[in-house]
Amino acid sequence: MDEFALIRRFFTDELDERVELGIGDDAALLRWPPGARVVITTDTLLAGRHFPEDTPAFSIGWKSLAVSLSDLAAMGAMPQAYVLALTLPAVNAAWLDDFARGLQAVAAVSGGIARVGGDTCAGPLAITITALGSLAADASAMRRDGARPGDAIAVTGSLGDAALALARLQAGLSCPQALRERLDQPVPRIAAGQALRVHAHAAIDVSDGLAGDLMHILEASGVGADIDVERLPASEMFTRLAPASERLRLQVSGGDDYELCVCLPAEALPGDAAGTPLQVIGTISGEPGLRWRDGQGRLLSESLHGFRHF
Amino acid sequence: MDEFALIRRFFTDELDERVELGIGDDAALLRWPPGARVVITTDTLLAGRHFPEDTPAFSIGWKSLAVSLSDLAAMGAMPQAYVLALTLPAVNAAWLDDFARGLQAVAAVSGGIARVGGDTCAGPLAITITALGSLAADASAMRRDGARPGDAIAVTGSLGDAALALARLQAGLSCPQALRERLDQPVPRIAAGQALRVHAHAAIDVSDGLAGDLMHILEASGVGADIDVERLPASEMFTRLAPASERLRLQVSGGDDYELCVCLPAEALPGDAAGTPLQVIGTISGEPGLRWRDGQGRLLSESLHGFRHF
Repeated sequence: MDEFALIRRFFTDELDERVELGIGDDAALLRWPPGARVVITTDTLLAGRHFPEDTPAFSIGWKSLAVSLSDLAAMGAMPQAYVLALTLPAVNAAWLDDFARGLQAVAAVSGGIARVGGDTCAGPLAITITALGSLAADASAMRRDGARPGDAIAVTGSLGDAALALARLQAGLSCPQALRERLDQPVPRIAAGQALRVHAHAAIDVSDGLAGDLMHILEASGVGADIDVERLPASEMFTRLAPASERLRLQVSGGDDYELCVCLPAEALPGDAAGTPLQVIGTISGEPGLRWRDGQGRLLSESLHGFRHF
Repeated sequence: MDEFALIRRFFTDELDERVELGIGDDAALLRWPPGARVVITTDTLLAGRHFPEDTPAFSIGWKSLAVSLSDLAAMGAMPQAYVLALTLPAVNAAWLDDFARGLQAVAAVSGGIARVGGDTCAGPLAITITALGSLAADASAMRRDGARPGDAIAVTGSLGDAALALARLQAGLSCPQALRERLDQPVPRIAAGQALRVHAHAAIDVSDGLAGDLMHILEASGVGADIDVERLPASEMFTRLAPASERLRLQVSGGDDYELCVCLPAEALPGDAAGTPLQVIGTISGEPGLRWRDGQGRLLSESLHGFRHF
């Protein structure tokens, strides 16, 4: 099957009023909300590196788009459209069908985003998605550089599930389906991002692990932070399955959570983020550095400080 | 060198008033011309497939962005910003420096486009660029589906140089630098596209060869075409170096020209396209099919008809 037939078969346009001209021309043409700014993000996912080699095609499609949607969520943007650059070892109709359904499914749980173009090549499996979101002219974006001393640090959902799933898979242990889905099919926090944007001084999505991602905020904002590790939110599955000795490592350096980490004035703290649980885990400080503390405020051992370097 | 250091070193932002927030956050944030539509295109280039393995890094950078700029040109859009997803076998500072200079150089000859973000991975060399252009709310885009019987068919510049360069390289023949640059460093027809947009009914950029690309217009528009092969524009280099028996094949099916092919009313035909030569090569017809004719209007042999199937 040639490239054009492939594109027509699996990646035809869905009807979307935002799209004036979609797949099949030199470029796509989008109507844009008047006055709105453009938020843009691009991510490449490679088999074996960003997802296990045996990941089902549906989950690969889901996750490929989810990571970009998560970046839009972390800016408080409204998803509008995406393009897909797909390098495939071979044209496998069943695989492509599942992959396309995965893209469609994560788009649906994210309030919709229009697929408007793409490119296909032959080669080792690689997926690059570039997603566009909009942000009203007068809306504040949740950047990384706005955190201020005294801000509460809060995270959506729970941390550690994806890292636990990956650790169990790599150790050859059973992995409950619900846990595996936290690794393979993260839910982008689109509505949460838009709700938090109104109050937040800074935000990031937790993709590389809380320690490393929070450090990006601290460095960009020129501040420090104190985190109470006993307040890190964990799912019921995580609490049940994670070995006690591994919990902290999985929660702060595991990655792939795709939760939002936001810094906002303590007095503006909402009870939740558009229905998603929101847990305060610490405080922004004027003193540089990232300090992990127990529930009594005691600094954790030097070995734990290492987590800041991820 | 880790990913963050790599990005900081080679892909820092250039100052650009269009960019509110560039590289280094979850996503970039662009100011957008009020009321303008968004034109978006994405392309992946792989070593050995889209450029010879021994292509210098400067040329790889140039060509990677040029193919996307050429798509924007074919829509008559104004380049605004791009993101770069780069998969690299290793971090080679000299290579990256040359590659970044190539990107910068083609951006400069195209009136400027802001680099606003990217992603880097380890793996076989692959470059995916997604470029955004703007098009005023009331501007007509040059789509593929607007060609009408009686329209003149015209192409910018000349055809066949890039294919000739590739053929000579593959045959182990010498390739003059100027010819090699037509393969490695195509000049996107940005100004020409904007000038032609006012009159054109349809357009495409010639990336896969005139025969195949013109067929996309004919199919999308539901029309046919008669082409006078003696009017296909050729450079002085091409005329001198291309073997007579190969000329037509190189000009109509060689690819990599990145010229614009436009269909426009004969009475609106400009003398050139913003300074770039514009050559009429044929006429759109109500009769389906793509017919190649000699200067006397005689249909060329059946074997030549085969070109339409690329």
